[in-house]
Amino acid sequence: METVSTNKAFGGTQGVYKHASAVTGTEMTFSVYVPPHAEGAKLPVVWYLSGLTCTHANVTEKGEFRAACAELGLIFVAPDTSPRGEGVADDPEGAYDFGLGAGFYVNATEAPFATHYRMRDYIEQELPALIAAEFPADMERQSIMGHSMGGHGALTIGLRNTGRFKAISAFAPIVSPLNCPWGEKALSGYIGTDRAKWREYDACALIEDGARMPSGLLIDQGTADGFLENQLKPELLEAACRATWQPTTVRMQEGYDHSYYFISTFMAEHLAWHAERLKA
Amino acid sequence: METVSTNKAFGGTQGVYKHASAVTGTEMTFSVYVPPHAEGAKLPVVWYLSGLTCTHANVTEKGEFRAACAELGLIFVAPDTSPRGEGVADDPEGAYDFGLGAGFYVNATEAPFATHYRMRDYIEQELPALIAAEFPADMERQSIMGHSMGGHGALTIGLRNTGRFKAISAFAPIVSPLNCPWGEKALSGYIGTDRAKWREYDACALIEDGARMPSGLLIDQGTADGFLENQLKPELLEAACRATWQPTTVRMQEGYDHSYYFISTFMAEHLAWHAERLKA
Repeated sequence: METVSTNKAFGGTQGVYKHASAVTGTEMTFSVYVPPHAEGAKLPVVWYLSGLTCTHANVTEKGEFRAACAELGLIFVAPDTSPRGEGVADDPEGAYDFGLGAGFYVNATEAPFATHYRMRDYIEQELPALIAAEFPADMERQSIMGHSMGGHGALTIGLRNTGRFKAISAFAPIVSPLNCPWGEKALSGYIGTDRAKWREYDACALIEDGARMPSGLLIDQGTADGFLENQLKPELLEAACRATWQPTTVRMQEGYDHSYYFISTFMAEHLAWHAERLKA
Repeated sequence: METVSTNKAFGGTQGVYKHASAVTGTEMTFSVYVPPHAEGAKLPVVWYLSGLTCTHANVTEKGEFRAACAELGLIFVAPDTSPRGEGVADDPEGAYDFGLGAGFYVNATEAPFATHYRMRDYIEQELPALIAAEFPADMERQSIMGHSMGGHGALTIGLRNTGRFKAISAFAPIVSPLNCPWGEKALSGYIGTDRAKWREYDACALIEDGARMPSGLLIDQGTADGFLENQLKPELLEAACRATWQPTTVRMQEGYDHSYYFISTFMAEHLAWHAERLKA
């Protein structure tokens, strides 16, 4: 692991790091905020998965998470959204919603994406091992959140690994790739056209198929979000949860859009909700 | 005035606006955050002046001021740092510390800069009139802060207009353009080589020449700031204030650098300090 930059912030250290990923076969960059802490202490870890077009940098610069992480004693990890670099396949037309910046947190099986697009294994296995080795992280206390495509990532990775994560939340998540244009494009491109194989990458399907998060799900969704009706569809998640008794709070936030102005507004509340579950 | 964008944030509205400035002879862009407020209420206004290379966007995205402004009921105005556009002279070598993004909050008298570089009049006169006309602003309650070159702007504009501003603070300000390379380059280029004329654009000289801010000055300065020794020199301001009984608090912040990671850490404390004086 190589340190790209560190800056003192709110008494702790905001760092950016890179490493050669064996899983993606590329160099991967990520950011970690470590709050002020007693020497030798091990701190709970919150994972934040970003949305389409983003890198680690968007939430690191605009997420306004450091004040709350410093107060609550939380490590905050922000990975990239796809492999990048020479030889990494992209959308044939360079679209923003597939390929670079749009890994959808899956292990691709279709050529030419299967070579590098293995974001599921990267987030589920390789990066946690690196975080455990390099930072004062208590890996027995992890939680996960994300935005939009990263909200989909947080919900699906969280629901598939409920033993690992003590809390799951999302800002304006894609709740069902099976039922929206972004998801249909991405999963057919990465996984192929057999939709039965998509179910492990669909939060609603995972819940229908039996995944349960006892500590509940927290979703904030802006009512002025331009992607709400066609792509995000929180009502599908509410219906899946209602039908299965999965505890879920979906808060429709009046007048908020899809931007970091929305995310930063509710970030501290999400982190407090995570901290409550991480420290229970 | 034309609205470029608005986003709901922390219950209020973060807007970006542009207008044809008669003072600079260019189109000028600025941002304004208006916190949630009762209909018909007039709110105090905090001016934030940015540093070299910045536009309104840096603090708007990275400043983490909205939570505190929403809580304290403060309007937050972030102007640009220079005129821009076709026909606006720049540093002959395109350097970052003169010309575009580096107006130093002066009225230039030297050709070719005198034509457009009139940031003093823009901040002191034209933009306040626009803010008063277009926003729910109580212009009897204004304060000013800034970073680096913008800290210089906040200190000098504040000290020249102590009747207008109830509080002045700065993050890592240039405290004496007469005594640092950035200042010498900028003021000789904009104002000419007669250093007596620079004194109205030098916070230390203004204090030596009699300017007083009864409510005090608040300065935060990181000890790991790479510009500290050669450009910023807070000890000169401390000496000028000590010699004149100007009340001043300079806080040397251990390990902090010159970035927005530093600024955002102490932003809420500055805003609370401003609010106390704005509401006194």
